[in-house]
Amino acid sequence: MPEALKRLINSIGYLPGIGENRATKLAFFLLNANQNFIETLSENILNIKGKIDFCNSCNGLTDSGKEVCNICKSTSRNHTTIAVVEEYLDMLTVEQSGGYKGIYHVLGGAISPINGVFISDLSFEKLFERIKDSDEDIELILATNPNIEGEATTNYIKEEVEKRGYKYKTKITRLSRGLSSGYIEYADNITLMNALKERKEI
Amino acid sequence: MPEALKRLINSIGYLPGIGENRATKLAFFLLNANQNFIETLSENILNIKGKIDFCNSCNGLTDSGKEVCNICKSTSRNHTTIAVVEEYLDMLTVEQSGGYKGIYHVLGGAISPINGVFISDLSFEKLFERIKDSDEDIELILATNPNIEGEATTNYIKEEVEKRGYKYKTKITRLSRGLSSGYIEYADNITLMNALKERKEI
Repeated sequence: MPEALKRLINSIGYLPGIGENRATKLAFFLLNANQNFIETLSENILNIKGKIDFCNSCNGLTDSGKEVCNICKSTSRNHTTIAVVEEYLDMLTVEQSGGYKGIYHVLGGAISPINGVFISDLSFEKLFERIKDSDEDIELILATNPNIEGEATTNYIKEEVEKRGYKYKTKITRLSRGLSSGYIEYADNITLMNALKERKEI
Repeated sequence: MPEALKRLINSIGYLPGIGENRATKLAFFLLNANQNFIETLSENILNIKGKIDFCNSCNGLTDSGKEVCNICKSTSRNHTTIAVVEEYLDMLTVEQSGGYKGIYHVLGGAISPINGVFISDLSFEKLFERIKDSDEDIELILATNPNIEGEATTNYIKEEVEKRGYKYKTKITRLSRGLSSGYIEYADNITLMNALKERKEI
């Protein structure tokens, strides 16, 4: 087998969920693909890190060079409703459900000491600052995953908001448990919209 | 969503068998992957065309700049047994079965007028030249796919070898029908080795 092909199969095989057979198929597809596509794909992979930054406001992703993302900048969104999610992918999933008009806060994960994720690793302080700096009453929708780590994260936020005295201007809700056990990113749009509609104060 | 991420998801989504959800997952994996891997993958994709050529002998693939591939060059292989396969991927599959010590000829496909693949599109003449130029008796193992197009291709080769008068020095066999209906590339090693062992003269 030519070296270039062997190397490509090897690289593709490192991608999650892609075994050797599938990697070989994809490599052959690329071998026969048009040069334009090859160059675009290669360039887009190379650019993925350099051209993306964290949004200074919500901690989600944005084009590098932009301080805040389009959602945080948008004037057509409700800036007093903040959905707090674990990962940016969760934020995208909620966006795709089409039923949410507020803004977001991306924690960067959930509290999980067993996996080495501690409170200081997540963007809680940034979230509390957003609440503190707000001139208006806000609603925090805690849209963490419906599992132990998500629960712990939700409880931590609730306790801190009360402890820091922001409770007077903060309504805390969480997604209704229409969600089946698992992860938000796998939920379908209707389940997610219903869960948003039936969110409950905690 | 940042432009760079959108573009990457879009590019990955063009790969066969990868839908939007899977493309998004892979893009996020790449976003979090180490820079070294990103650069290697990107470079390997970009190099896939420029660094690969067709082997002048078997019509398989080889590193660009090399006239013949390592298998055709090898002195430890039996050069009087030629397995004729449709695609280079079939050749790799037979190689991986580990039971074959001859060499190969890659046709580049199978005769299929309905799909626009005609006799002149495949490397038959190169194969007949190899037979003609051989000083020794050779065995052709016709390892085309066990379907209509593969049958037509096998029949064409058999007829031409007889018509051109090479029959006196050419033994033609085909893989035994231990193969289940479908494509060679999906066959497991044992099935393939048995099919090689029980090949029949035609």
